[in-house]
Amino acid sequence: MSVPAGGVGEVASGDAHLRETCLATEVVEQGQFLQWRRDRVQLPDGRQAVREYVVHPGAVMIVAALPDGRLVMERQFRYPVGRTMIEFPAGKLDPGEGGLACAQRELLEETGYRARRWAQAGVMHPVIGYATEFIEVWLADDLIAGERHLDDGEFLDVFAASEGELSQWFRDGLLTDAKTVVGMMWLQQWRSGAWAPAWVSVADAASGTPASAPE
Amino acid sequence: MSVPAGGVGEVASGDAHLRETCLATEVVEQGQFLQWRRDRVQLPDGRQAVREYVVHPGAVMIVAALPDGRLVMERQFRYPVGRTMIEFPAGKLDPGEGGLACAQRELLEETGYRARRWAQAGVMHPVIGYATEFIEVWLADDLIAGERHLDDGEFLDVFAASEGELSQWFRDGLLTDAKTVVGMMWLQQWRSGAWAPAWVSVADAASGTPASAPE
Repeated sequence: MSVPAGGVGEVASGDAHLRETCLATEVVEQGQFLQWRRDRVQLPDGRQAVREYVVHPGAVMIVAALPDGRLVMERQFRYPVGRTMIEFPAGKLDPGEGGLACAQRELLEETGYRARRWAQAGVMHPVIGYATEFIEVWLADDLIAGERHLDDGEFLDVFAASEGELSQWFRDGLLTDAKTVVGMMWLQQWRSGAWAPAWVSVADAASGTPASAPE
Repeated sequence: MSVPAGGVGEVASGDAHLRETCLATEVVEQGQFLQWRRDRVQLPDGRQAVREYVVHPGAVMIVAALPDGRLVMERQFRYPVGRTMIEFPAGKLDPGEGGLACAQRELLEETGYRARRWAQAGVMHPVIGYATEFIEVWLADDLIAGERHLDDGEFLDVFAASEGELSQWFRDGLLTDAKTVVGMMWLQQWRSGAWAPAWVSVADAASGTPASAPE
């Protein structure tokens, strides 16, 4: 049996026997939003291999809770998978932009909501095989409704859904976006009491009208 | 307030106001494993835009439960994110290969385990912004231990972890792989009784020795 002794000890142990190191790197193609890169790497046994991957600026996702407990969701056509997806609001970091600033900007632009309280849940890596992308997960609470301002050429619906609805859609295969399922897991950790968000109050969100849930 | 009426009705409604259609497609670069493509698309308002994305063959992920309830996990260095990740076993579909056959092959090659019972949980989309990738999630139960046979140049640790350990690592930011969190959500749906897997018995797994959990 080749399975080594495991558990936390194994996870916490060193990873020198697994690491790959960069020998050479090359930009294969500079796209409009993303760069494709090809590196030659040294494997743990000293041999060489090629790693091709997308360089991504990083992103944020927002789990925004309405006063009635429902979440602010989006419905957006995603061309690479050829279908309309149910998602939490998300967007790429602008150069030099912090995660919270990006989360505030994206939530406002795409949904029209501001939030008075924010808390970072964690970071996820959606594409560890071929992209550098990370997504910061932010919780937003105490919402204030306003007007959205979509980017030019951006088309998406905004709607509200309960945690139970999201779980049902997940089980039924209607909700298949991985980042959104990660957001659901954070939501569950929060609401079950297994994890407590470290809320930060955001002063400049205090203007505007109190949030009411969409129908 | 620009938020439209929401809930299931909204989700179930048509998506003609969101859809993009292909006008032209071009292979930008054919990589060793993946292809990068650039399409010109027509937006819902009739204007045009460019979509750049990776063409991926699809993959499977295996949530394999040991007799003591712990899960078969891997620890693998992922070059694009520059770190060692905790993951469920997974791998790309070979040309023409079915999901179950791929799941059986990958679990055996990477961990040495065969399973007598399999059930498909669902499908996820990890990279809806810039890749066609889908990942079928398979549950594997009634395991039989054996020898693993890693691909040439593949380096990974195999270990066992409980559902509680995985949740703790998720909250602590040690488990950030999005596909693995989706697998945890399916595991939770299964073990909570919210969802019942449709198990299929696999005859040719009946040879070998009964599984014992790693330390």
